[in-house]
Amino acid sequence: MARIVMKFGGTSMAGIERIRSVAARVKREVSAGNQVAVVVSAMAGETDRLVGFCREASSLYDAREYDVVVATGEQVTSGLLALALQSLGVPARSWLGWQLPIRTNDAHASARIEDIDTAALDAALSSGEVAVIPGFQGVSDNDRISTLGRGGSDTSAVAIAAAMKADRCDIYTDVDGVYTTDPRIVPRARKLKRVTYEEMLELASVGAKVLQTRSVGLAMKTGVRIQVLSSFDDPNNSATADTLPGTMIVGDDEIGDDMERQLITGIAHDKNEAKITLTSVPDKPGAVARIFSPLAAVNINVDMIIQNIAHSTGSTDVTFTVPQAELSRALDVLEKARADVGYETLVHDTKVAKVSVVGVGMRSHAGVASTMFTALADRGINIQAISTSEIKVSVLIEEDYTELAVRVLHTAYGLDAEEAA
Amino acid sequence: MARIVMKFGGTSMAGIERIRSVAARVKREVSAGNQVAVVVSAMAGETDRLVGFCREASSLYDAREYDVVVATGEQVTSGLLALALQSLGVPARSWLGWQLPIRTNDAHASARIEDIDTAALDAALSSGEVAVIPGFQGVSDNDRISTLGRGGSDTSAVAIAAAMKADRCDIYTDVDGVYTTDPRIVPRARKLKRVTYEEMLELASVGAKVLQTRSVGLAMKTGVRIQVLSSFDDPNNSATADTLPGTMIVGDDEIGDDMERQLITGIAHDKNEAKITLTSVPDKPGAVARIFSPLAAVNINVDMIIQNIAHSTGSTDVTFTVPQAELSRALDVLEKARADVGYETLVHDTKVAKVSVVGVGMRSHAGVASTMFTALADRGINIQAISTSEIKVSVLIEEDYTELAVRVLHTAYGLDAEEAA
Repeated sequence: MARIVMKFGGTSMAGIERIRSVAARVKREVSAGNQVAVVVSAMAGETDRLVGFCREASSLYDAREYDVVVATGEQVTSGLLALALQSLGVPARSWLGWQLPIRTNDAHASARIEDIDTAALDAALSSGEVAVIPGFQGVSDNDRISTLGRGGSDTSAVAIAAAMKADRCDIYTDVDGVYTTDPRIVPRARKLKRVTYEEMLELASVGAKVLQTRSVGLAMKTGVRIQVLSSFDDPNNSATADTLPGTMIVGDDEIGDDMERQLITGIAHDKNEAKITLTSVPDKPGAVARIFSPLAAVNINVDMIIQNIAHSTGSTDVTFTVPQAELSRALDVLEKARADVGYETLVHDTKVAKVSVVGVGMRSHAGVASTMFTALADRGINIQAISTSEIKVSVLIEEDYTELAVRVLHTAYGLDAEEAA
Repeated sequence: MARIVMKFGGTSMAGIERIRSVAARVKREVSAGNQVAVVVSAMAGETDRLVGFCREASSLYDAREYDVVVATGEQVTSGLLALALQSLGVPARSWLGWQLPIRTNDAHASARIEDIDTAALDAALSSGEVAVIPGFQGVSDNDRISTLGRGGSDTSAVAIAAAMKADRCDIYTDVDGVYTTDPRIVPRARKLKRVTYEEMLELASVGAKVLQTRSVGLAMKTGVRIQVLSSFDDPNNSATADTLPGTMIVGDDEIGDDMERQLITGIAHDKNEAKITLTSVPDKPGAVARIFSPLAAVNINVDMIIQNIAHSTGSTDVTFTVPQAELSRALDVLEKARADVGYETLVHDTKVAKVSVVGVGMRSHAGVASTMFTALADRGINIQAISTSEIKVSVLIEEDYTELAVRVLHTAYGLDAEEAA
């Protein structure tokens, strides 16, 4: 017997037929003798609808009332899943955020979970009842409904798994696991059996959107074992999730001895970056701070930064990337800072992409970056910027070369499977 | 300064534009110096949508989970109205059933309010904040969300008005008051300035669906003054509700001295009745009990009952009415009771209507019923059954004559206004 959390996203909850299919899947785990808590998202599209209402109702935006409205999406699906489970003969009840309670701080609309009281949950699970918990929501210190921000249901699931000391947190998604790269680009991408938290964090942060980054960070911190599985259920399949071929996300220690493991775990890409260059910035102390301080002040995340060596004129060019969604705000801020920074021209380019190779194996192996640079150079792909972390090397290239670069690197690091995925 | 409850139905909350218009109306009362609590329904159609989901999800129907799902409709509109009020500069917050709390019993899906804690509400209102409260919902003894049954928002409003000792409970509806009869049938129907609780109860129970019957009963018990007003707001109108021409629903004592008052307050009609006749029922003790006991056992309300005088054969015919919605269940029960009752044939007729004259003045005046019978006979309208209460006389007639009967009676009792309403 294991204690597991199962988390289902909005696509899995979109309509009664799908909710019934989720119920069947939960029943399999219960029938296998497991204690199960289920965390659910709102029906696909519902949160957008509710957010739209709030925006229309008020430009002032009181996040506490916003939370009252948007938390209803998950409340509906948790009640419906409890009903669907009952109709399959599985004892079940919904537990809303304020009922457990799931305590959060007062940062409404992007609250952080502070504490989960598991007394009621433990009692329910021990009695053989399935606990259905709306994701994304909690209750703040002043007893008002709070939400965790978009995509927060993954975080809810991991936090609940940690609090109830679950053996596993199974996240059911549109894909059936984490792949070495996007199979739509590289048909011979391989599904990974195991990936470390850190690798998953790097992959998520560079565009492999299987899990919300925050939930992976929480899992790493609390040691929750996450399994990524496909939500497309074969009704004739009687397998429980511990025998399904998903991807486990675990700590370094669990895969330390895996001799078969590749040096590189995966290749990720991200087309949502924009490149900004300031030319002829005075090459003197404080110049760079005057560029990035005003951006930080308005919460714009700057990613790859390159400062060229100074020209003979005593000035330099500074290039960096920001998310495309923040580009116009960033340009606005930089225009205003022109006199202060003293740059000559401000140019930007959205036709860029970031391609990254990720893997914990990198720590103990030299030469990973040079393999990357050589492979790209051999195909005539120009590198516009480079950034590295302990387990990742990213390059910025012209957007049109994205798929080519991903394929070239997938082959260069020996990740291609024998057959197409 | 007065303390008032304003209640808005689903039509008033159907979309952000309408919610904004409600907010403007609330603002007028606040600007006039009133302390205001607002009770809201779900957006028109939303509760039906949620009920549909529940029915699809489970035929077993756990009313506790049903309540979790359907209570979200009012949660959404209460958050949105709070936002809309804030954007007009009116301090406001939503108070969910579990937050006040509004305590109910455990009869989920048709719960009764047991207690409302007004400490938080008093503090909020005294600080000048508008309290927006979702109607229809509360929290049961075991801290689960409960709902009061369809149309429960009127009851919520009256219960909250009673608990907070409000000076008035203003119910905004699709009509602008209570009329002497349906103005679509009698254009010269007059709007009543005042009507007693008992009259309103009788009018509601015979088809004048302005207010939920239960809410009127509660208002009578607790002495809450209800005002029925139109929810169609003229944005250029700066009047507060105490000067608007709605209908006040009050106690007998408040209208006791009204010399201008008509003998009859109104004429109501109801086409949702069905007539059932059992022929040749043995005319002996206990026979009638054997008919009505099995109907009562399955909660079918029987209304008008006539037992004809016994035939020479020692048997009699028994006729009564049930709501049309219950007809097939009633026939089913009666078929099964055939041997026990010993009747000969079972016939039914849905082409009937009940027309009623209602008025507290009846108590002190004889001749009300005979005026009715004479007026109907003069136009050749046959009376199939009669029932009376202290302040009401109802007759069952052929459905096709309904509008004619209503017009004839409206004139016979001198209710016609000088001009069309």
